[in-house]
Amino acid sequence: MALKPTLAKGTRDFGPLQVVKRNYIMDTMKNVFQTYGFMPLETPAMENLTTLEGKYGTEGDQLLFRILNSGDYLNALKEHTDSILADESKDPTFAPTPSGRLIDLDAKAALPFISEKGLRYDLTVPFARFITMHRHEITWPFKRYQIQPVWRADRPQKGRYREFWQCDADIAGSESLVCESDLIHIYHDVYTQLGMSEYILKLSNRKVLAGIAQVVHSEAALGTISVAIDKLDKVGTESVQHELLQKGFTDEQCNNLFGILSISGSNAEKLTQLESVLSASEIGLKGINELREVLTSCEDVNVVIDFSLARGLTYYTGCIVEVVYTKGSLKSSIGGGGRYDNLTGIFGMPGVSGVGISFGLDRIYDIMDELSMFPSQLQATGTRVLVCAMSADAMKSGMDAVKKLRAASVPAELYPDVKKLGKQLDYANALKIPFAIIIGENEIQTGEYTLKNLNEGTQQSLIIEHIISQLKS
Amino acid sequence: MALKPTLAKGTRDFGPLQVVKRNYIMDTMKNVFQTYGFMPLETPAMENLTTLEGKYGTEGDQLLFRILNSGDYLNALKEHTDSILADESKDPTFAPTPSGRLIDLDAKAALPFISEKGLRYDLTVPFARFITMHRHEITWPFKRYQIQPVWRADRPQKGRYREFWQCDADIAGSESLVCESDLIHIYHDVYTQLGMSEYILKLSNRKVLAGIAQVVHSEAALGTISVAIDKLDKVGTESVQHELLQKGFTDEQCNNLFGILSISGSNAEKLTQLESVLSASEIGLKGINELREVLTSCEDVNVVIDFSLARGLTYYTGCIVEVVYTKGSLKSSIGGGGRYDNLTGIFGMPGVSGVGISFGLDRIYDIMDELSMFPSQLQATGTRVLVCAMSADAMKSGMDAVKKLRAASVPAELYPDVKKLGKQLDYANALKIPFAIIIGENEIQTGEYTLKNLNEGTQQSLIIEHIISQLKS
Repeated sequence: MALKPTLAKGTRDFGPLQVVKRNYIMDTMKNVFQTYGFMPLETPAMENLTTLEGKYGTEGDQLLFRILNSGDYLNALKEHTDSILADESKDPTFAPTPSGRLIDLDAKAALPFISEKGLRYDLTVPFARFITMHRHEITWPFKRYQIQPVWRADRPQKGRYREFWQCDADIAGSESLVCESDLIHIYHDVYTQLGMSEYILKLSNRKVLAGIAQVVHSEAALGTISVAIDKLDKVGTESVQHELLQKGFTDEQCNNLFGILSISGSNAEKLTQLESVLSASEIGLKGINELREVLTSCEDVNVVIDFSLARGLTYYTGCIVEVVYTKGSLKSSIGGGGRYDNLTGIFGMPGVSGVGISFGLDRIYDIMDELSMFPSQLQATGTRVLVCAMSADAMKSGMDAVKKLRAASVPAELYPDVKKLGKQLDYANALKIPFAIIIGENEIQTGEYTLKNLNEGTQQSLIIEHIISQLKS
Repeated sequence: MALKPTLAKGTRDFGPLQVVKRNYIMDTMKNVFQTYGFMPLETPAMENLTTLEGKYGTEGDQLLFRILNSGDYLNALKEHTDSILADESKDPTFAPTPSGRLIDLDAKAALPFISEKGLRYDLTVPFARFITMHRHEITWPFKRYQIQPVWRADRPQKGRYREFWQCDADIAGSESLVCESDLIHIYHDVYTQLGMSEYILKLSNRKVLAGIAQVVHSEAALGTISVAIDKLDKVGTESVQHELLQKGFTDEQCNNLFGILSISGSNAEKLTQLESVLSASEIGLKGINELREVLTSCEDVNVVIDFSLARGLTYYTGCIVEVVYTKGSLKSSIGGGGRYDNLTGIFGMPGVSGVGISFGLDRIYDIMDELSMFPSQLQATGTRVLVCAMSADAMKSGMDAVKKLRAASVPAELYPDVKKLGKQLDYANALKIPFAIIIGENEIQTGEYTLKNLNEGTQQSLIIEHIISQLKS
């Protein structure tokens, strides 16, 4: 007896109805992306670790899923340790110990010898790699969308999986704020079309943050301030103040910062107030102007200027956005993005500005599911009619009937076994198939089959051609 | 300066036009699958190795991509070796050697301690795992399709990749030959709809092969005969005969076998001839009857009975099919499948018969690409019109124009920078965008924009509403 099989931790199967619902979300996104002129791109699940490592910070590196080299994966490591033992100046990392232990490896030091590939961690780094490799064939600016799973060796918890889907749209090769405007409208269109109109799109700008850092403390404090602001929501003002004090901020500087973050009013009022605070900061004023320009072209979208938005990733350099949903128990971010001025610098190709947004498919799904927002016509099967044959002879007529139905593009199934009608109809009802055609001896002789409407319980006798025209209408 | 990035060996990026062409193939399949009542299923990329190992033979196990355990992946191995060293009866696999080498591990013996997960190798085993785990919620018979990438650490070569796509349709839980008929018709519909009408669908039956084995040699020889037949195409009769002689077959038995395999004529004639040869084999005659029944319901499909079809995998127990394409340089299988009577037995759930087919997406793509079979309207971008603004003022009107176009479901882009018209039209031409709207000072004043047909070189002056109705028609 084999063991009962299980799923790998943090991964999920998607059964028929789940796939249909997920596709509904993804098709909505694809349709909007294409309406805005974005083109699809797909990259491999496996990337060389040289591509992935060092791009996501120390924590990110630890969360990479690494693939063992194929064949004898220990060969390179054995060769390396042999060469160390042969060498007088031994690498202390691999120094033998008197214990005689078979394994005295440092896991990290051994890693490069046994693993060269890892699983995709996000879609931005593969996008940057693609651009760098294909820079001469690309038509600039390059607008691409990409919907694929990514993998992170995170601790699984509610709403957080080890395999999850990112849905990204990015524009590379243009510094125009038209790009920011397009992306914000994409958020608006997708969430509106999904019926998630109660989203809030928070907008800020890294240049504004840099200005705040300059004014409050010093230009060099941008990193510290960003990290602190990022935590505000979770840990509260007091805790953040404590952290800032430890990092050398004075009480006055902290109060100054919190004062700025609490600026309130309409978007225009917030910007006017901040403008006077940042009057001495060139970069800060530049950020304010960018925000004003974007706001002008996004009057039809529910945008809220929020200076307490920081977006953890340090590579953002201009506008930053985050979308949260105000209903449901999840209360988490359902999308985010921003501008990064040096997208492909990590691969030795400087000067390409990029701006992009990401949708969290899994969270959107969870919210829509919790709030019953999926259209009721989404069903596991698209089958319109189940053909039920009551004898071996009827099976032949049934085969003929499904062929005609399918040729007329009516999704149809012939129940494959001759079983009692009730049993066959159980199948139709379980899958919510709306119609059944019943073929018995009587029907074969008259050439008229019984068409049963399973939702209404009504039935008619019709020749197959009339059934087809009825089911098509 | 960073290193120029590369792809992991045997993997590929799919640029916009490739994705569009691949989706065209996959959408055709999905549409046919759904017309036949198949429902979508998706399973994770990572599976526990306990699920994958031992299911694909020794060679398959070697081709699995294994994922290093996360965190300190050496911990479990260190603990294990420590316990061995502490133990008087040391496991010889891990015995220390006098060489003092730091690593004296057997790669295979160490594997279970450092890797628990692997990448999906096919879609059948995950399907069987899913069925086993969800047996009580499933509506039987269960008809699912699944289109996802799989990974194999094979040596990459022309037409063979380490990441490639399988497109499977399977029916579990019915022994009816209606299933075989449906699946053969799915092949027919998909290839016909793709314009690949010059396919040949080879059909045979494992029971017939068992009958041949009985008659030629002994029931036990089925495995040997299947393997030999599988090679016939590649190595020829002489080489196969040599192999069979080495395995204890007599010259007479070999000639007998080759005589049966060379039976020719129409499908009906082949079956009649084989029937007399297999008259003493109950299982052989059963196989012939199954083939006859399937043929009867597949008269509208290009099926060829081929007794030299074996299908390597030993788990098939009934009908087997393989589809080859007769044109193009690839000349390889573009699909295959069959019935396996014990789908979920590997997971301790006996008695579930399954039958399924698989499409090789990558090969179908390669053939269609080589023979220029993709519809010409497939383009990288779906954008209908590029809006070109000739000044900062025009940019505002342009923004307004794309909003109106998109609201009317006309895919549209605003070129994000104010550049010379030629430069902007270069972008449109490179992406084969058919129309451009040009907005300059003049156009802003009159309110009529210039609509340029880029294919025909003609242009008109129209208000945006008229442009929209023209582009929609």
